[in-house]
Amino acid sequence: MVLFSGDFDKVMACFIIASGALAMGKEVSLFVTFWGLDAIKKPSFKTAGRKVLERMILWMRPKGPLKLGTSKMNFGGIGPRLFRYMMGKKNVEPLPSLIEMSQALGIKIIACQMSMDVMGIRKEELIDGIRIGGVATYLSAADRSRVNLFI
Amino acid sequence: MVLFSGDFDKVMACFIIASGALAMGKEVSLFVTFWGLDAIKKPSFKTAGRKVLERMILWMRPKGPLKLGTSKMNFGGIGPRLFRYMMGKKNVEPLPSLIEMSQALGIKIIACQMSMDVMGIRKEELIDGIRIGGVATYLSAADRSRVNLFI
Amino acid sequence: MVLFSGDFDKVMACFIIASGALAMGKEVSLFVTFWGLDAIKKPSFKTAGRKVLERMILWMRPKGPLKLGTSKMNFGGIGPRLFRYMMGKKNVEPLPSLIEMSQALGIKIIACQMSMDVMGIRKEELIDGIRIGGVATYLSAADRSRVNLFI
Repeated sequence: MVLFSGDFDKVMACFIIASGALAMGKEVSLFVTFWGLDAIKKPSFKTAGRKVLERMILWMRPKGPLKLGTSKMNFGGIGPRLFRYMMGKKNVEPLPSLIEMSQALGIKIIACQMSMDVMGIRKEELIDGIRIGGVATYLSAADRSRVNLFI
Repeated sequence: MVLFSGDFDKVMACFIIASGALAMGKEVSLFVTFWGLDAIKKPSFKTAGRKVLERMILWMRPKGPLKLGTSKMNFGGIGPRLFRYMMGKKNVEPLPSLIEMSQALGIKIIACQMSMDVMGIRKEELIDGIRIGGVATYLSAADRSRVNLFI
Repeated sequence: MVLFSGDFDKVMACFIIASGALAMGKEVSLFVTFWGLDAIKKPSFKTAGRKVLERMILWMRPKGPLKLGTSKMNFGGIGPRLFRYMMGKKNVEPLPSLIEMSQALGIKIIACQMSMDVMGIRKEELIDGIRIGGVATYLSAADRSRVNLFI
Protein backbone atom coordinates (compact mmCIF):
# COMPACT_ATOMS: atom_id res chain seq x y z
CA MET A 1 0.00 0.00 0.00
CA VAL A 2 1.03 3.57 -0.65
CA LEU A 3 -0.06 6.11 1.96
CA PHE A 4 0.10 9.45 0.15
CA SER A 5 -2.63 11.26 2.04
CA GLY A 6 -2.33 12.78 5.49
CA ASP A 7 -6.07 13.19 6.05
CA PHE A 8 -7.20 11.66 9.33
CA ASP A 9 -10.03 9.71 7.69
CA LYS A 10 -7.83 8.25 4.95
CA VAL A 11 -5.03 7.37 7.35
CA MET A 12 -7.63 5.61 9.55
CA ALA A 13 -8.87 3.62 6.53
CA CYS A 14 -5.30 2.74 5.67
CA PHE A 15 -4.43 1.37 9.10
CA ILE A 16 -7.79 -0.38 9.52
CA ILE A 17 -7.14 -2.26 6.27
CA ALA A 18 -3.50 -2.89 7.21
CA SER A 19 -4.21 -4.17 10.70
CA GLY A 20 -7.07 -6.29 9.39
CA ALA A 21 -4.83 -7.90 6.81
CA LEU A 22 -2.08 -8.47 9.39
CA ALA A 23 -4.58 -10.06 11.77
CA MET A 24 -5.53 -12.44 8.95
CA GLY A 25 -1.89 -13.48 8.69
CA LYS A 26 -0.92 -11.47 5.60
CA GLU A 27 2.26 -9.48 5.11
CA VAL A 28 1.76 -5.75 4.72
CA SER A 29 4.23 -3.18 3.37
CA LEU A 30 3.28 0.46 3.65
CA PHE A 31 5.14 3.05 1.63
CA VAL A 32 4.52 6.45 3.24
CA THR A 33 5.08 9.53 1.10
CA PHE A 34 4.20 13.24 0.83
CA TRP A 35 1.45 14.24 3.31
CA GLY A 36 1.25 10.69 4.63
CA LEU A 37 4.47 11.38 6.53
CA ASP A 38 2.48 13.66 8.86
CA ALA A 39 0.81 10.55 10.23
CA ILE A 40 4.03 8.87 11.34
CA LYS A 41 5.72 11.88 12.89
CA LYS A 42 6.55 11.98 16.56
CA PRO A 43 4.32 14.46 18.40
CA SER A 44 7.06 17.03 18.88
CA PHE A 45 10.32 17.85 17.28
CA LYS A 46 12.58 20.85 16.93
CA THR A 47 12.88 22.76 13.71
CA ALA A 48 16.15 24.53 14.66
CA GLY A 49 19.11 24.33 12.32
CA ARG A 50 17.07 24.15 9.15
CA LYS A 51 16.50 26.40 6.18
CA VAL A 52 13.72 28.96 6.57
CA LEU A 53 11.45 27.31 4.00
CA GLU A 54 11.78 23.87 5.54
CA ARG A 55 11.09 25.30 8.98
CA MET A 56 8.01 27.10 7.65
CA ILE A 57 6.57 23.97 6.12
CA LEU A 58 7.35 21.81 9.16
CA TRP A 59 5.69 24.39 11.36
CA MET A 60 2.54 24.39 9.25
CA ARG A 61 2.13 20.63 8.90
CA PRO A 62 0.46 18.50 11.59
CA LYS A 63 2.74 16.51 13.85
CA GLY A 64 1.62 12.96 14.40
CA PRO A 65 -1.65 11.06 14.22
CA LEU A 66 -3.52 13.16 16.77
CA LYS A 67 -3.03 16.37 14.81
CA LEU A 68 -4.32 15.31 11.39
CA GLY A 69 -7.29 17.06 9.81
CA THR A 70 -10.12 15.30 8.00
CA SER A 71 -10.57 15.53 4.22
CA LYS A 72 -14.14 16.75 4.68
CA MET A 73 -15.91 18.53 7.54
CA ASN A 74 -12.66 19.55 9.18
CA PHE A 75 -14.09 22.81 10.62
CA GLY A 76 -10.70 24.09 11.70
CA GLY A 77 -9.84 20.96 13.64
CA ILE A 78 -13.18 20.31 15.36
CA GLY A 79 -14.07 17.63 12.80
CA PRO A 80 -11.28 15.22 13.75
CA ARG A 81 -12.02 15.66 17.46
CA LEU A 82 -15.68 14.95 16.78
CA PHE A 83 -14.86 11.83 14.81
CA ARG A 84 -12.43 10.63 17.44
CA TYR A 85 -15.17 11.08 20.03
CA MET A 86 -17.77 9.22 17.95
CA MET A 87 -15.33 6.45 17.09
CA GLY A 88 -14.46 6.06 20.76
CA LYS A 89 -18.18 5.68 21.56
CA LYS A 90 -18.39 2.80 19.05
CA ASN A 91 -15.21 1.17 20.36
CA VAL A 92 -13.18 1.86 17.24
CA GLU A 93 -9.48 1.66 18.05
CA PRO A 94 -7.94 5.18 18.01
CA LEU A 95 -5.39 5.89 15.29
CA PRO A 96 -2.21 5.85 17.44
CA SER A 97 -3.18 2.40 18.82
CA LEU A 98 -3.97 1.15 15.31
CA ILE A 99 -0.48 2.20 14.21
CA GLU A 100 1.14 0.58 17.26
CA MET A 101 -0.93 -2.57 16.79
CA SER A 102 0.05 -2.79 13.13
CA GLN A 103 3.69 -2.48 14.14
CA ALA A 104 3.30 -5.19 16.76
CA LEU A 105 1.75 -7.42 14.08
CA GLY A 106 4.75 -6.89 11.83
CA ILE A 107 3.81 -4.19 9.34
CA LYS A 108 6.75 -2.93 7.27
CA ILE A 109 6.59 0.86 7.09
CA ILE A 110 8.90 2.49 4.55
CA ALA A 111 9.15 6.29 4.58
CA CYS A 112 9.84 7.91 1.23
CA GLN A 113 13.39 9.27 1.15
CA MET A 114 12.67 11.88 -1.48
CA SER A 115 9.65 13.38 0.31
CA MET A 116 11.64 13.52 3.53
CA ASP A 117 14.45 15.34 1.73
CA VAL A 118 12.10 17.82 0.10
CA MET A 119 10.18 18.60 3.27
CA GLY A 120 13.25 18.51 5.52
CA ILE A 121 12.03 15.67 7.73
CA ARG A 122 14.70 13.56 9.49
CA LYS A 123 14.52 9.90 10.44
CA GLU A 124 14.68 10.58 14.20
CA GLU A 125 11.54 12.70 13.87
CA LEU A 126 9.46 9.79 12.65
CA ILE A 127 8.13 7.03 14.89
CA ASP A 128 10.52 4.19 15.68
CA GLY A 129 10.80 0.97 13.75
CA ILE A 130 10.38 2.32 10.26
CA ARG A 131 12.74 2.09 7.31
CA ILE A 132 13.67 4.69 4.71
CA GLY A 133 13.46 3.80 1.04
CA GLY A 134 12.86 5.00 -2.47
CA VAL A 135 10.46 4.23 -5.23
CA ALA A 136 12.45 1.11 -6.17
CA THR A 137 11.86 -0.32 -2.68
CA TYR A 138 8.15 0.33 -3.08
CA LEU A 139 7.96 -1.15 -6.56
CA SER A 140 9.66 -4.38 -5.61
CA ALA A 141 7.24 -4.82 -2.69
CA ALA A 142 4.26 -3.90 -4.89
CA ASP A 143 5.33 -6.42 -7.47
CA ARG A 144 5.22 -9.22 -4.87
CA SER A 145 1.81 -8.15 -3.49
CA ARG A 146 -1.63 -9.47 -4.27
CA VAL A 147 -3.41 -6.27 -3.32
CA ASN A 148 -2.05 -2.79 -4.08
CA LEU A 149 -3.75 0.39 -2.97
CA PHE A 150 -2.91 4.09 -3.31
CA ILE A 151 -4.55 5.98 -0.46
CA MET B 1 -12.74 -1.84 -5.31
CA VAL B 2 -12.97 0.36 -2.26
CA LEU B 3 -15.17 3.44 -2.60
CA PHE B 4 -13.99 5.77 0.16
CA SER B 5 -14.78 9.09 -1.49
CA GLY B 6 -18.18 10.67 -1.76
CA ASP B 7 -17.20 13.22 -4.42
CA PHE B 8 -19.53 13.14 -7.40
CA ASP B 9 -16.66 12.91 -9.91
CA LYS B 10 -14.91 10.05 -8.09
CA VAL B 11 -18.15 8.13 -7.55
CA MET B 12 -18.86 8.53 -11.30
CA ALA B 13 -15.39 7.17 -12.14
CA CYS B 14 -15.97 4.28 -9.75
CA PHE B 15 -19.28 3.21 -11.29
CA ILE B 16 -18.08 3.77 -14.87
CA ILE B 17 -15.18 1.38 -14.20
CA ALA B 18 -17.46 -1.04 -12.33
CA SER B 19 -20.20 -1.14 -14.97
CA GLY B 20 -17.59 -1.44 -17.73
CA ALA B 21 -16.00 -4.41 -16.02
CA LEU B 22 -19.39 -6.03 -15.41
CA ALA B 23 -20.33 -5.53 -19.08
CA MET B 24 -17.11 -7.35 -19.97
CA GLY B 25 -18.26 -10.29 -17.91
CA LYS B 26 -16.11 -9.72 -14.81
CA GLU B 27 -17.21 -9.99 -11.21
CA VAL B 28 -17.06 -6.74 -9.25
CA SER B 29 -17.15 -6.29 -5.48
CA LEU B 30 -17.42 -2.76 -4.17
CA PHE B 31 -16.66 -2.04 -0.53
CA VAL B 32 -18.25 1.32 0.35
CA THR B 33 -16.89 3.14 3.37
CA PHE B 34 -16.69 6.60 5.00
CA TRP B 35 -17.91 9.36 2.63
CA GLY B 36 -18.64 6.83 -0.10
CA LEU B 37 -21.76 5.85 1.87
CA ASP B 38 -23.31 9.18 0.84
CA ALA B 39 -23.52 7.83 -2.71
CA ILE B 40 -25.66 4.82 -1.82
CA LYS B 41 -28.10 6.53 0.51
CA LYS B 42 -31.77 6.72 -0.30
CA PRO B 43 -32.79 10.29 -1.17
CA SER B 44 -34.61 10.89 2.09
CA PHE B 45 -34.62 9.43 5.54
CA LYS B 46 -35.58 10.51 9.00
CA THR B 47 -33.04 11.38 11.62
CA ALA B 48 -35.43 11.10 14.57
CA GLY B 49 -34.52 8.91 17.52
CA ARG B 50 -30.79 9.43 17.21
CA LYS B 51 -28.14 11.12 19.27
CA VAL B 52 -27.62 14.82 18.60
CA LEU B 53 -24.18 14.37 17.06
CA GLU B 54 -25.33 11.64 14.70
CA ARG B 55 -28.31 13.73 13.68
CA MET B 56 -26.05 16.73 13.04
CA ILE B 57 -23.70 14.76 10.81
CA LEU B 58 -26.52 13.05 8.92
CA TRP B 59 -28.13 16.42 8.35
CA MET B 60 -24.91 17.88 6.93
CA ARG B 61 -24.02 15.02 4.59
CA PRO B 62 -25.52 14.68 1.11
CA LYS B 63 -28.29 12.12 0.70
CA GLY B 64 -27.90 9.98 -2.38
CA PRO B 65 -26.16 10.27 -5.74
CA LEU B 66 -27.95 13.44 -6.87
CA LYS B 67 -26.73 15.43 -3.88
CA LEU B 68 -23.01 14.77 -4.06
CA GLY B 69 -20.55 17.63 -4.53
CA THR B 70 -17.55 17.54 -6.84
CA SER B 71 -13.97 17.36 -5.53
CA LYS B 72 -13.05 20.46 -7.55
CA MET B 73 -15.13 23.36 -8.91
CA ASN B 74 -18.07 22.60 -6.65
CA PHE B 75 -19.16 26.25 -6.35
CA GLY B 76 -21.68 25.55 -3.64
CA GLY B 77 -23.41 22.80 -5.60
CA ILE B 78 -23.53 24.47 -9.04
CA GLY B 79 -20.55 22.42 -10.22
CA PRO B 80 -22.27 19.02 -9.99
CA ARG B 81 -25.38 20.39 -11.73
CA LEU B 82 -23.17 21.77 -14.50
CA PHE B 83 -21.36 18.47 -14.91
CA ARG B 84 -24.61 16.54 -14.93
CA TYR B 85 -25.89 18.87 -17.66
CA MET B 86 -22.71 18.51 -19.76
CA MET B 87 -22.63 14.75 -19.30
CA GLY B 88 -26.26 14.53 -20.36
CA LYS B 89 -25.41 16.45 -23.54
CA LYS B 90 -22.73 13.84 -24.34
CA ASN B 91 -25.02 10.93 -23.54
CA VAL B 92 -23.12 9.84 -20.47
CA GLU B 93 -25.36 7.70 -18.28
CA PRO B 94 -26.34 9.67 -15.12
CA LEU B 95 -25.02 8.37 -11.79
CA PRO B 96 -28.27 6.86 -10.42
CA SER B 97 -28.72 4.85 -13.67
CA LEU B 98 -25.08 3.74 -13.55
CA ILE B 99 -25.63 2.43 -10.03
CA GLU B 100 -28.88 0.67 -11.03
CA MET B 101 -27.23 -0.77 -14.14
CA SER B 102 -24.31 -2.08 -12.10
CA GLN B 103 -26.74 -3.74 -9.72
CA ALA B 104 -28.66 -5.30 -12.62
CA LEU B 105 -25.34 -6.62 -13.95
CA GLY B 106 -24.59 -8.26 -10.62
CA ILE B 107 -22.24 -5.93 -8.72
CA LYS B 108 -21.74 -6.92 -5.08
CA ILE B 109 -21.95 -3.79 -2.93
CA ILE B 110 -20.79 -4.17 0.66
CA ALA B 111 -21.36 -1.24 3.02
CA CYS B 112 -18.79 -0.84 5.79
CA GLN B 113 -20.33 -1.79 9.13
CA MET B 114 -17.94 0.33 11.17
CA SER B 115 -18.51 3.54 9.17
CA MET B 116 -22.25 3.03 9.41
CA ASP B 117 -21.99 2.61 13.17
CA VAL B 118 -19.82 5.69 13.59
CA MET B 119 -22.00 7.92 11.41
CA GLY B 120 -25.29 6.47 12.65
CA ILE B 121 -26.47 5.19 9.25
CA ARG B 122 -28.91 2.24 9.23
CA LYS B 123 -29.29 -0.47 6.60
CA GLU B 124 -32.81 0.59 5.62
CA GLU B 125 -31.48 4.05 4.72
CA LEU B 126 -29.18 2.67 2.06
CA ILE B 127 -30.35 1.55 -1.38
CA ASP B 128 -31.72 -1.98 -1.63
CA GLY B 129 -29.72 -5.04 -2.53
CA ILE B 130 -26.54 -4.25 -0.64
CA ARG B 131 -24.82 -6.26 2.07
CA ILE B 132 -23.16 -5.09 5.27
CA GLY B 133 -19.64 -6.25 6.05
CA GLY B 134 -16.35 -5.50 7.72
CA VAL B 135 -12.76 -5.18 6.66
CA ALA B 136 -12.39 -8.98 6.64
CA THR B 137 -15.15 -9.25 4.01
CA TYR B 138 -13.33 -6.68 1.90
CA LEU B 139 -9.94 -8.32 2.31
CA SER B 140 -11.12 -11.76 1.26
CA ALA B 141 -12.73 -10.27 -1.88
CA ALA B 142 -9.62 -8.17 -2.59
CA ASP B 143 -7.43 -11.23 -2.26
CA ARG B 144 -9.41 -13.01 -4.98
CA SER B 145 -9.39 -9.99 -7.34
CA ARG B 146 -7.12 -9.23 -10.26
CA VAL B 147 -7.60 -5.48 -10.06
CA ASN B 148 -7.86 -3.55 -6.77
CA LEU B 149 -8.53 0.16 -6.57
CA PHE B 150 -8.99 2.62 -3.70
CA ILE B 151 -11.12 5.52 -4.92
CA MET C 1 -2.48 3.10 -13.34
CA VAL C 2 -5.40 5.49 -13.46
CA LEU C 3 -4.54 9.19 -13.10
CA PHE C 4 -7.78 10.83 -12.00
CA SER C 5 -6.34 13.68 -9.99
CA GLY C 6 -4.88 16.87 -11.40
CA ASP C 7 -3.17 17.94 -8.17
CA PHE C 8 0.49 18.74 -8.68
CA ASP C 9 1.60 16.53 -5.79
CA LYS C 10 -0.42 13.51 -6.91
CA VAL C 11 0.64 13.88 -10.54
CA MET C 12 4.27 14.03 -9.33
CA ALA C 13 3.77 10.82 -7.32
CA CYS C 14 2.18 9.19 -10.35
CA PHE C 15 5.04 9.97 -12.71
CA ILE C 16 7.72 9.18 -10.11
CA ILE C 17 6.20 5.71 -9.71
CA ALA C 18 5.72 5.34 -13.47
CA SER C 19 9.24 6.40 -14.43
CA GLY C 20 10.70 4.26 -11.64
CA ALA C 21 8.84 1.21 -12.90
CA LEU C 22 9.87 1.93 -16.50
CA ALA C 23 13.50 2.29 -15.43
CA MET C 24 13.22 -1.15 -13.83
CA GLY C 25 12.13 -2.55 -17.18
CA LYS C 26 8.41 -2.82 -16.53
CA GLU C 27 5.63 -1.86 -18.91
CA VAL C 28 3.43 0.99 -17.71
CA SER C 29 -0.02 1.99 -19.01
CA LEU C 30 -1.48 5.21 -17.68
CA PHE C 31 -5.17 5.94 -18.16
CA VAL C 32 -5.70 9.67 -17.70
CA THR C 33 -9.19 10.84 -16.86
CA PHE C 34 -11.14 13.79 -15.38
CA TRP C 35 -8.80 16.34 -13.71
CA GLY C 36 -5.75 14.28 -14.62
CA LEU C 37 -6.14 15.57 -18.18
CA ASP C 38 -4.96 18.99 -16.93
CA ALA C 39 -1.51 17.46 -16.47
CA ILE C 40 -1.10 16.38 -20.08
CA LYS C 41 -2.41 19.51 -21.74
CA LYS C 42 -0.19 21.62 -23.93
CA PRO C 43 0.64 24.96 -22.24
CA SER C 44 -1.63 26.98 -24.52
CA PHE C 45 -4.58 26.33 -26.72
CA LYS C 46 -7.46 28.30 -28.14
CA THR C 47 -10.98 27.96 -26.87
CA ALA C 48 -12.62 29.54 -29.92
CA GLY C 49 -15.41 27.70 -31.72
CA ARG C 50 -16.72 25.97 -28.63
CA LYS C 51 -19.87 26.17 -26.59
CA VAL C 52 -19.90 28.76 -23.81
CA LEU C 53 -19.89 26.19 -21.00
CA GLU C 54 -16.94 24.27 -22.45
CA ARG C 55 -15.04 27.51 -22.95
CA MET C 56 -15.74 28.53 -19.37
CA ILE C 57 -14.47 25.26 -17.94
CA LEU C 58 -11.40 25.19 -20.19
CA TRP C 59 -10.60 28.74 -19.15
CA MET C 60 -10.82 27.86 -15.45
CA ARG C 61 -8.76 24.68 -15.56
CA PRO C 62 -4.94 24.71 -15.43
CA LYS C 63 -3.14 24.17 -18.71
CA GLY C 64 -0.27 21.73 -18.48
CA PRO C 65 2.03 20.46 -15.73
CA LEU C 66 3.42 23.85 -14.75
CA LYS C 67 -0.01 25.25 -13.89
CA LEU C 68 -1.29 22.55 -11.55
CA GLY C 69 -2.21 23.39 -7.97
CA THR C 70 -1.31 21.25 -4.95
CA SER C 71 -3.96 19.28 -3.03
CA LYS C 72 -2.85 20.94 0.22
CA MET C 73 -1.11 24.23 0.97
CA ASN C 74 -1.85 25.64 -2.47
CA PHE C 75 -2.07 29.26 -1.21
CA GLY C 76 -3.45 30.54 -4.51
CA GLY C 77 -0.64 29.04 -6.56
CA ILE C 78 2.33 29.91 -4.32
CA GLY C 79 2.40 26.35 -2.93
CA PRO C 80 3.31 24.65 -6.21
CA ARG C 81 5.98 27.23 -6.95
CA LEU C 82 7.42 26.67 -3.47
CA PHE C 83 7.44 22.92 -3.93
CA ARG C 84 8.99 23.19 -7.35
CA TYR C 85 11.73 25.38 -5.84
CA MET C 86 12.36 22.96 -2.95
CA MET C 87 12.33 19.94 -5.25
CA GLY C 88 14.81 21.66 -7.55
CA LYS C 89 17.12 22.23 -4.56
CA LYS C 90 17.04 18.48 -3.84
CA ASN C 91 17.60 17.56 -7.50
CA VAL C 92 14.16 16.08 -7.98
CA GLU C 93 13.33 15.99 -11.68
CA PRO C 94 10.66 18.62 -12.50
CA LEU C 95 7.27 17.33 -13.61
CA PRO C 96 7.51 18.17 -17.33
CA SER C 97 10.87 16.30 -17.55
CA LEU C 98 9.40 13.35 -15.63
CA ILE C 99 6.60 13.16 -18.19
CA GLU C 100 9.01 13.44 -21.13
CA MET C 101 11.33 10.85 -19.55
CA SER C 102 8.44 8.44 -19.03
CA GLN C 103 7.48 8.86 -22.66
CA ALA C 104 11.06 8.23 -23.79
CA LEU C 105 11.05 5.06 -21.66
CA GLY C 106 7.91 3.86 -23.40
CA ILE C 107 4.98 4.70 -21.12
CA LYS C 108 1.59 4.17 -22.78
CA ILE C 109 -0.62 7.15 -21.99
CA ILE C 110 -4.30 6.74 -22.80
CA ALA C 111 -6.54 9.80 -22.45
CA CYS C 112 -10.14 9.09 -21.49
CA GLN C 113 -12.43 9.74 -24.47
CA MET C 114 -15.49 10.40 -22.36
CA SER C 115 -13.83 12.99 -20.08
CA MET C 116 -12.42 14.75 -23.14
CA ASP C 117 -15.90 14.85 -24.68
CA VAL C 118 -17.52 16.16 -21.52
CA MET C 119 -14.90 18.86 -20.90
CA GLY C 120 -14.53 19.76 -24.59
CA ILE C 121 -10.82 18.88 -24.81
CA ARG C 122 -9.46 17.87 -28.25
CA LYS C 123 -6.63 15.49 -29.04
CA GLU C 124 -4.41 18.19 -30.56
CA GLU C 125 -4.56 20.09 -27.26
CA LEU C 126 -2.92 17.25 -25.35
CA ILE C 127 0.79 16.48 -25.48
CA ASP C 128 1.99 14.38 -28.40
CA GLY C 129 2.34 10.62 -28.39
CA ILE C 130 -0.75 9.74 -26.41
CA ARG C 131 -3.68 7.59 -27.43
CA ILE C 132 -7.40 8.07 -26.83
CA GLY C 133 -9.41 5.25 -25.34
CA GLY C 134 -12.35 4.26 -23.22
CA VAL C 135 -12.89 2.30 -20.04
CA ALA C 136 -12.61 -0.99 -21.97
CA THR C 137 -9.07 -0.06 -23.05
CA TYR C 138 -8.20 0.66 -19.43
CA LEU C 139 -9.76 -2.52 -18.12
CA SER C 140 -7.96 -4.79 -20.55
CA ALA C 141 -4.62 -3.17 -19.59
CA ALA C 142 -5.50 -3.36 -15.87
CA ASP C 143 -6.35 -7.01 -16.22
CA ARG C 144 -2.86 -7.78 -17.56
CA SER C 145 -1.08 -5.71 -14.88
CA ARG C 146 0.54 -6.83 -11.65
CA VAL C 147 0.12 -3.50 -9.91
CA ASN C 148 -2.96 -1.30 -10.28
CA LEU C 149 -3.29 2.12 -8.69
CA PHE C 150 -5.97 4.82 -8.74
CA ILE C 151 -4.34 8.18 -8.10
